[in-house]
Amino acid sequence: MGRVSPRTLSGFMELLPPQQQQMERIMSALRETYSLYGFTPLDTPLIEASEVLLAKGGGETEKQIYRFQKGDADLSLRFDLTVPLAKYVALHYGELSFPFRRYQIGKVYRGERAQRGRFREFYQADIDVIGDGQLSIVNEAEIPAIIYSTFTKLGLKRFQIRVNNRKILNGFYAMLGLSEKAGDVMRTVDKLDKIGRSGVEKVLTAEIGLTGEQCGEILNFIAIQGDNAAVLSALEGYRGRHQLFDTGLDELRTVVGSLAGFGVPEENFAVDLTIARGLDYYTGTVYETTLLDHPEIGSVCSGGRYDNLAEYYTSKQLPGVGISIGLTRLFYVLQEQGMLSEEMNTAPADVLILPMTEDLSPAIELATSLRQSEIRVQVYAEEKKFKQRMAYGNKIGVPFVIFLGEDEIAQGKVTLKNMRTGEQETMLEDEARTKIIRFQGQDDAIAPIREV
Amino acid sequence: MGRVSPRTLSGFMELLPPQQQQMERIMSALRETYSLYGFTPLDTPLIEASEVLLAKGGGETEKQIYRFQKGDADLSLRFDLTVPLAKYVALHYGELSFPFRRYQIGKVYRGERAQRGRFREFYQADIDVIGDGQLSIVNEAEIPAIIYSTFTKLGLKRFQIRVNNRKILNGFYAMLGLSEKAGDVMRTVDKLDKIGRSGVEKVLTAEIGLTGEQCGEILNFIAIQGDNAAVLSALEGYRGRHQLFDTGLDELRTVVGSLAGFGVPEENFAVDLTIARGLDYYTGTVYETTLLDHPEIGSVCSGGRYDNLAEYYTSKQLPGVGISIGLTRLFYVLQEQGMLSEEMNTAPADVLILPMTEDLSPAIELATSLRQSEIRVQVYAEEKKFKQRMAYGNKIGVPFVIFLGEDEIAQGKVTLKNMRTGEQETMLEDEARTKIIRFQGQDDAIAPIREV
Repeated sequence: MGRVSPRTLSGFMELLPPQQQQMERIMSALRETYSLYGFTPLDTPLIEASEVLLAKGGGETEKQIYRFQKGDADLSLRFDLTVPLAKYVALHYGELSFPFRRYQIGKVYRGERAQRGRFREFYQADIDVIGDGQLSIVNEAEIPAIIYSTFTKLGLKRFQIRVNNRKILNGFYAMLGLSEKAGDVMRTVDKLDKIGRSGVEKVLTAEIGLTGEQCGEILNFIAIQGDNAAVLSALEGYRGRHQLFDTGLDELRTVVGSLAGFGVPEENFAVDLTIARGLDYYTGTVYETTLLDHPEIGSVCSGGRYDNLAEYYTSKQLPGVGISIGLTRLFYVLQEQGMLSEEMNTAPADVLILPMTEDLSPAIELATSLRQSEIRVQVYAEEKKFKQRMAYGNKIGVPFVIFLGEDEIAQGKVTLKNMRTGEQETMLEDEARTKIIRFQGQDDAIAPIREV
Repeated sequence: MGRVSPRTLSGFMELLPPQQQQMERIMSALRETYSLYGFTPLDTPLIEASEVLLAKGGGETEKQIYRFQKGDADLSLRFDLTVPLAKYVALHYGELSFPFRRYQIGKVYRGERAQRGRFREFYQADIDVIGDGQLSIVNEAEIPAIIYSTFTKLGLKRFQIRVNNRKILNGFYAMLGLSEKAGDVMRTVDKLDKIGRSGVEKVLTAEIGLTGEQCGEILNFIAIQGDNAAVLSALEGYRGRHQLFDTGLDELRTVVGSLAGFGVPEENFAVDLTIARGLDYYTGTVYETTLLDHPEIGSVCSGGRYDNLAEYYTSKQLPGVGISIGLTRLFYVLQEQGMLSEEMNTAPADVLILPMTEDLSPAIELATSLRQSEIRVQVYAEEKKFKQRMAYGNKIGVPFVIFLGEDEIAQGKVTLKNMRTGEQETMLEDEARTKIIRFQGQDDAIAPIREV
């Protein structure tokens, strides 16, 4: 028969079972953490009408869209989870309660140029809080706590949540009479890490046309550093020169001031005046999160406050604040860096029962009984030699094997082998059960990411 | 500004938050049950190269495919989870361990004619066990146990797992010299419920051209009924006339004989000789599952044994057995029938804290503390009147509200209101914590489906 070579499209992640188990543990840590903060799970279609999805139109994104006809319909695959959220909130406005807090972990599609570590299908994990007309600054203050809880739960310690406020930036540029050029200036300042201070200076004066004085003010401003108290104190020096700036500074003080109550340690947080977030979309607090030992990865969790979620769909003003984790890329990078936990049990089962008798009934009954204690059990039923059966157990990495032969059945016992220690002992079923449950408890506590 | 009317495509399910919570509980019941039987989670791309996805080609399915170009690539959205599994196993053959047991819960796409209760994007929840060259009958015997555990966990009691064996059917038709016409005959027999015994008789003789004798044999055969022992005993009457039939009967005896060991009650299981499953694909045990009080829904969980999972991709013989639940349709029907549990907590949080002071720090600290006990907490931070705050709590259906005012803070206490009973009491934080945790435990035990 004619055969087709099986392949997976380039730019599409497809994991082997152990890695998929690691990914699942990351996803369930995210779901659990987001739920603790009162976010409700949401699931929206992957396909939307193009006119709805592309209501905003234009931009780099549109070229990357997977867009196609089906019958008469012009359809597109979603390229983020924000536009579908905007549609959802506008469409179901009357049936939702505000502030509306939702999380969504889902795949999105962008036909980017294929290259190593770039994905065309990737998971985003988003949370957003949407207000109806208004939204308290406390929601912005809570976001660092959620980021902190999430990354801690994932197993990370050496990360930093960096925060700025767009009102401070916009107010500051207004003070300098640079409101019109603020976008260009911020995009330039954003390159500070790449092109350095002198590179920024050159672009600001030569390309954007700032005066030397303006440029000096900007370079001084973004050079403000130190602990949070020092940065806030330096910012106070600008107070009174522009109202938007002052509001931003008040907001930043609220965000910083809530950290302790929200349980965020000072070392995992920094005010960073160079952060602007590219999008014009943000209007208040903005967030980036970096892994201190891997600055080259860039921000792994970003977002901010916006004033108008759904202006393309409704006249209702729906301000919000949200953050997004690019999960597929994060997973890829962690894997490359050897930062995925290898200690966690990635086997499909906690125990593999190897029946040593022709009649499998005792093995099946044992499996049924262990499953009642939430133990994940496989019964190896294939007719293979002992060596091959053990090879299977080793290959799937199962932590325990139970041998069930004539002797064990006659004694009402089982022989349990701990595959990690090699320890093997004949014991009552309930002793084996207890040992496996204890192992499960230890395994559950293993975070999916480890710092190396 | 020009606005676009927000809408969701017809045939695409988009749930409101409480219903999404019900769906999530169903999905997590499925994940948990499948895991207990040692299945590993899998996640494959939604998009595949058309030549790979449509390797089998032809048929009704192909017309329904969402197929499109992106650049030079001819792409298609997956229309089931079986073809991607076949591709996955063929592609990663060398890196997998066999028998390979995987579950996958994912969206698939079929551009069917839009009508009420039909979906173009829908979840399938599949499990499969794939052997390398061979696969023990025990795997077929285990499937009813998995279906039983799954539906029991979902909250159902009144369901029946119906089982047949294609070898029995094929062997039986071979006895009658009807191997060539077996497909047509089985498709006709499958309509027994709809067109009745006389309708079947008419089609078999007039359209398919069977003799009266052949037709009589078939009608007698599919009339075999009674409990499992009675059906098996009646089938023994045909033994010795065709080898395939005898093998099938032995297999069926093994499947039925294992039920007790696997913990499946006799009342949830029946041998049903009318079940064939349309596909030519199946070669051994076949399964259907019906809700006894809702036969009109048809089978809610179907599948069977097949001999060649991936023949379009590899010369390796990969026999398997699998079942699939059409989750989106099942959810839709349960909702229509009022069978989704309304008792479960569908709120985004277990408790809503209403701060009654201007300073929100005590509320934030309380929330942080409760979250450490895995309690899902929202702090209501908006500046609204008391009545509006309570209306929000009522609308999201939160089971507990905590009032935190000057008095409570001074006393080191909280006022906890049980929103279901109306009971309200001022108590120590730890008493409130205990009450909420007790509620969580009760709520966790509520199954997502209820029989009405």
